[in-house]
Amino acid sequence: MDVTLLELTPFQSDLVGGFFSLTFAVFLGSALFFFLGRREVAPRYRMAVTISGVIVTIAAYHYWRILGSFEAASMGESLFNEAYRYVDWIITVPLLLTELVLVLSIDPARRRSLLQRLVPYSFLMIALGFPGEVAATTSTAVIFWALSMVFFVLILVTLFGELSRQIAAEPPAVQSTLRALRVVLLVTWSFYPIAYLFPLLLADAATAFVLLNVGYAVADITAKAGYGLLIHHVATVKTELDEAVIVG
Amino acid sequence: MDVTLLELTPFQSDLVGGFFSLTFAVFLGSALFFFLGRREVAPRYRMAVTISGVIVTIAAYHYWRILGSFEAASMGESLFNEAYRYVDWIITVPLLLTELVLVLSIDPARRRSLLQRLVPYSFLMIALGFPGEVAATTSTAVIFWALSMVFFVLILVTLFGELSRQIAAEPPAVQSTLRALRVVLLVTWSFYPIAYLFPLLLADAATAFVLLNVGYAVADITAKAGYGLLIHHVATVKTELDEAVIVG
Repeated sequence: MDVTLLELTPFQSDLVGGFFSLTFAVFLGSALFFFLGRREVAPRYRMAVTISGVIVTIAAYHYWRILGSFEAASMGESLFNEAYRYVDWIITVPLLLTELVLVLSIDPARRRSLLQRLVPYSFLMIALGFPGEVAATTSTAVIFWALSMVFFVLILVTLFGELSRQIAAEPPAVQSTLRALRVVLLVTWSFYPIAYLFPLLLADAATAFVLLNVGYAVADITAKAGYGLLIHHVATVKTELDEAVIVG
Repeated sequence: MDVTLLELTPFQSDLVGGFFSLTFAVFLGSALFFFLGRREVAPRYRMAVTISGVIVTIAAYHYWRILGSFEAASMGESLFNEAYRYVDWIITVPLLLTELVLVLSIDPARRRSLLQRLVPYSFLMIALGFPGEVAATTSTAVIFWALSMVFFVLILVTLFGELSRQIAAEPPAVQSTLRALRVVLLVTWSFYPIAYLFPLLLADAATAFVLLNVGYAVADITAKAGYGLLIHHVATVKTELDEAVIVG
């Protein structure tokens, strides 16, 4: 990314800063919601909701840093730090995968085997993406994008296969939510590799910078807070079903 | 808003800064009240009280930013950022509508259909208001004010109709609170489109700036903390009635 933030128009600058602040506020609010709501779900689903809260808290911290770095860079005091985003993903993406696996009714052995594949894939996906994001040349950026995409596709294929197999085994009341979750996963995750390419596709560096950062912010909100709400909903409905079995 | 904050008199500047700080403090206090008091209400009303707490926490964050931006602008370091207010509303107004619908005794299907109309209306109301607020010309400001007002009126008509229908079905003990809530909704919400017009109606930009910002602060306190207290009261009374039924 070779744009100097001083090149942004005041409108572009306010738009990007406003989105960073909005994302922080959404994560702050959803962290409170998950932490306060976790005792409303049965103990066996509580860890999934706790992890949702942990993820959005970590993400709120990183957006606070990103906004601070953006403000300093806008005043020409320093360069905009792209690394916070990757530091955030390297912590939160394995947690997002764990949270999903925890809320499905899979036996523990299969759960472990799934996570033993998904977590290393996610590390490799993010670690290989970063050199491309800060690369000086287009060819380097494209090579690392492609390497990162290998693990991106592996994760989505594994999760999609697992979810599709699993949906039939889940109670009918949560099937529609799990289908929605599968769509959210595919749509929001697909946004990242597309946003990554904006700086390579668009000639105007300032426009590309705005699109990339607003795009990542929207994708982060959906992939973390929106996804956490769906997981919370699955946990709530499953809790009600479990209670109905005990009472009935 | 083309006022330079350096034009404010020291009294005007202290008044506006003081109101921003007061609003932050009220939201901080009410967030604690809602979070600590949520376990006192029955589980079915707890989500409404949790959302009240989330709303005032997010609003407290934004008033913190608004005060910081105002202080920086007062010293001529940067421009006053009008966007935080709109970023706040775009998150909190849909939550305010959700919270009200959650505390009424409506069946889930009707609740969903209500929110599927109200939430998009509120997004459009706020998104269309912003271009007018920062517009350079009066005609642009008036056009966006009118567009935004279409959705403002739609929301109030929908909510007022629903509340009026609903009040008869609620227990007598909460009917007077719901009537008060209906008045609070109408009076506080009406304040926003009026405050919006101050800069267009008043020749003195500094006075208009003071009235607009003090007005929005008072309206925010009433529409978020005051309204949340009424919702909390409805939840408390309904909890007592539910317990009386179980015991009796």
